[in-house]
Amino acid sequence: MTVKLVVLYTKPDDADAFDKHYLEQHGPLVDALPGLQRWEGATFIAAPDRGEETYHRMAELYFADLDALHAALAADAGKATAADYAQIAPTGSRMFIAAVD
Amino acid sequence: MTVKLVVLYTKPDDADAFDKHYLEQHGPLVDALPGLQRWEGATFIAAPDRGEETYHRMAELYFADLDALHAALAADAGKATAADYAQIAPTGSRMFIAAVD
Repeated sequence: MTVKLVVLYTKPDDADAFDKHYLEQHGPLVDALPGLQRWEGATFIAAPDRGEETYHRMAELYFADLDALHAALAADAGKATAADYAQIAPTGSRMFIAAVD
Repeated sequence: MTVKLVVLYTKPDDADAFDKHYLEQHGPLVDALPGLQRWEGATFIAAPDRGEETYHRMAELYFADLDALHAALAADAGKATAADYAQIAPTGSRMFIAAVD
C-alpha cells in the first residue's frame, strides 16, 4: 500500500522569500529522505469552489508503505526536514498521511 | 505547466456509504472528463502534526494546462462530475487548483 505524506502550507507573509527557502533549502532536505520514492510540489493558484484560498503550497512525499514513511521521519534526514518545516511552515499549515488508492 | 484540481473531502457521516458511492459512481464520472491526463485518489489515515483529522479523502486530477482543466469542467462530463460532487461532498470539503512544480 503506497502511502504519502501530504503537507499543506498556508499563505506565508512573504511568498517570494518562502519559495526561495523552500526550493533551495527545504527541497534538498526532502530529496535526502531515506526510502522516498518520489515527491511532488505544487503551488495553489485558485479556489474554484469560491472559498478561501487557504494554502500557498503543497507537497506530497511517496513511500512504499507506512513503515517506510515512519522510518524516513525517524532518520536524521527526517529530523532535519522536520526542523526546517517547523522553521518555514506558516501558522495553520497541516501535515497528513494518506493511503493512495 | 501541468495543473491539478485538488479536492479535499471532509469526514462523511457514513464513510462506508461515501466510499461506495465515490468509487462506484464518482470515479467513473472523473474517468470520463475530457483532457484528463490521470487522477489519483487517496484516503487520509493520520495527522502526524497531531492536529484535527480534517479530511477523509483527497483526489487530484491532472491536466496539461489551465485551459484544459477549465475545458473539462465546462464540458457535459465536467458538469455531471460537479453535480455528483455537490451531492456527496460533506460540508467543509474544498476544491483548489494547483500548478505542479
